[in-house]
Amino acid sequence: MRLDTEQNTEPGGGRSGELELLRRIRARAARISGTAIRLGIGDDCALLNPRPGEELAVTTDLSIAGRHFRLDWHPPEAVGHRTLARGLSDLAAMGARPMAAFLSLGLPKELVHNAKGRKPWPKTWPKTWIDGFYDGFLALADAYKTPLAGGDLAESPIAVADIMLVGTVPRGKALLRSGARPGDWLYATGRLGGAATGLTRLTELAGKPARTQTDRQKGLNIPRNLGQTLAPHLYPQPRIAQGFALAQRGLATAALDLSDGLSTDLTHLCEESGVAAEIDAAALPLHPGATLAQALYGGEDYELLFTAAADARVPRAITGVPVTRIGRIVRRRWGRPTILLRTEHGAQPLEARGWEHFAQRPI
Amino acid sequence: MRLDTEQNTEPGGGRSGELELLRRIRARAARISGTAIRLGIGDDCALLNPRPGEELAVTTDLSIAGRHFRLDWHPPEAVGHRTLARGLSDLAAMGARPMAAFLSLGLPKELVHNAKGRKPWPKTWPKTWIDGFYDGFLALADAYKTPLAGGDLAESPIAVADIMLVGTVPRGKALLRSGARPGDWLYATGRLGGAATGLTRLTELAGKPARTQTDRQKGLNIPRNLGQTLAPHLYPQPRIAQGFALAQRGLATAALDLSDGLSTDLTHLCEESGVAAEIDAAALPLHPGATLAQALYGGEDYELLFTAAADARVPRAITGVPVTRIGRIVRRRWGRPTILLRTEHGAQPLEARGWEHFAQRPI
Repeated sequence: MRLDTEQNTEPGGGRSGELELLRRIRARAARISGTAIRLGIGDDCALLNPRPGEELAVTTDLSIAGRHFRLDWHPPEAVGHRTLARGLSDLAAMGARPMAAFLSLGLPKELVHNAKGRKPWPKTWPKTWIDGFYDGFLALADAYKTPLAGGDLAESPIAVADIMLVGTVPRGKALLRSGARPGDWLYATGRLGGAATGLTRLTELAGKPARTQTDRQKGLNIPRNLGQTLAPHLYPQPRIAQGFALAQRGLATAALDLSDGLSTDLTHLCEESGVAAEIDAAALPLHPGATLAQALYGGEDYELLFTAAADARVPRAITGVPVTRIGRIVRRRWGRPTILLRTEHGAQPLEARGWEHFAQRPI
Repeated sequence: MRLDTEQNTEPGGGRSGELELLRRIRARAARISGTAIRLGIGDDCALLNPRPGEELAVTTDLSIAGRHFRLDWHPPEAVGHRTLARGLSDLAAMGARPMAAFLSLGLPKELVHNAKGRKPWPKTWPKTWIDGFYDGFLALADAYKTPLAGGDLAESPIAVADIMLVGTVPRGKALLRSGARPGDWLYATGRLGGAATGLTRLTELAGKPARTQTDRQKGLNIPRNLGQTLAPHLYPQPRIAQGFALAQRGLATAALDLSDGLSTDLTHLCEESGVAAEIDAAALPLHPGATLAQALYGGEDYELLFTAAADARVPRAITGVPVTRIGRIVRRRWGRPTILLRTEHGAQPLEARGWEHFAQRPI
């Protein structure tokens, strides 16, 4: 598995610059070591050594500029963080712990080299977009002990980042989407709607998108006092420890991560398990400032949604993250909605639909 | 690991069309089964069960329209084939056998739906680009017993395909780039320069690139009698059986696949092993019609380049593919070129450089 750049003979973006970039990435990635990695960046493949009795969980997630992030809205550090967080959250949903990450990056030339087309070295030169991306990516990788074992880097007219994660889970313990049964309770970790709230605030900030290349590379100028409001959107925390604890203790009958929004993800869970569900609106753990609609339809919260048998002793928090009972699993009945939302005004069907997506606007 | 599409509420490209597409892909992928896959497409991650004593080889390769393929030159079947072949070839270079493939696809809407924006169903409707892509991808996956275990599908302004492959190799038997020693002989499988020859012919055919969207989606009209000439470029064969045989028998001291071209890839091998090399130009197994330059600098032949100790009994062919001794490994000396090319006119340094790349032209 190579972390290799295409040959490039143009001045300013030349071979030596590419090799220098490659060396920088290798050096930074090498700092996060994993005992399961026998061979990392630099050969045709990485070599991994899983332990006996472990199953491997593998996931890939593609992020595309204009669809999953915007160069003129998101700081490069947030794009790097979110790219990895999406994949880590998929591992968390299986109860797996990260073993190694692989990152394929396709980037326009101006995001790799600075304005003068020279490599950003020595450090007194301004940081390039790709440096910011790796700052965010590797900080999260470090926090979740996820070594970057390889990937691919190519020039591309638009920015794309594909993350692939390999995780391990004790054999037979993985949390699937298909195990929910009528009578199970439904739970969510953390708070819901925070990412949608942050995105709404970001949209307001971005009233007038940056027009110049320099502005675009810097991203929005985000006021300091908004850091906390925007964090759930810009820097979501994957629930690795919580997913692992649920798998290890055999507490959950089914689980997935809230990436598309509660209404959509719960529909997935119900479909894979062949069941229906009822949600108690008053029980939903809303993020401060979030509306009920943002909690129901807002995606990218990356909390875990799981079910557990009625007699399971589910704790109120796992390693500091609250766990809230939000509803129950019921039998699927012909002509009845898959999800019923109970509010003070009565019960109503909950349709699986997403929050307004920033990427649907032309950029 | 999901093979999931983004929500899309526009007419003609709607949710039902996306789900139908997803069902079609799932159904086709399910036909290639792998005993090591416990859970494939449909959950947050795929679950793989490696056997004790096996190491995992993991590789990713990013292919981008305009850089690695051209929509107006390459038939969709060839794009699908080449996407998978790149990854399989990396496994072959390690001596690994494929266990599972993961594919992230970012595609413009018009490549997923047909001209009228409706899903291509029933079968009497014209095949879409993505159907052709999967035809090529899954035919190769079937031939090399590589189940598609998951991936991601998103809308993208340009076509991108990222392939991730997980393979297995007996512990400690993997072929690395770093094991070549002075005195080893240097070998190549198959014939060299065929892909560059095919690409040159394709370039000539494409004198006038298609201008309409329909023409672009069909790709070039390739005359039947050119099939054999273009095959090494459009449908390269990864050397899985040959790599596995070399690893299994412990014959090779180092190996990699010829993706960037002999001059560049041999330089990689020499750098990783800390050695130098001499090539005998007269010994190179040129593909019929290929020039010496195409064999030296033309990439994408996806043959294996490997070294073996002087007393190793390297066969002349492995499962029908010829193995040719093309040079030897020598000590690295200060001020001396990494690679020396011996021809009838004497010896000259061989510079690591690529063949003219189609992607360097604006499209």
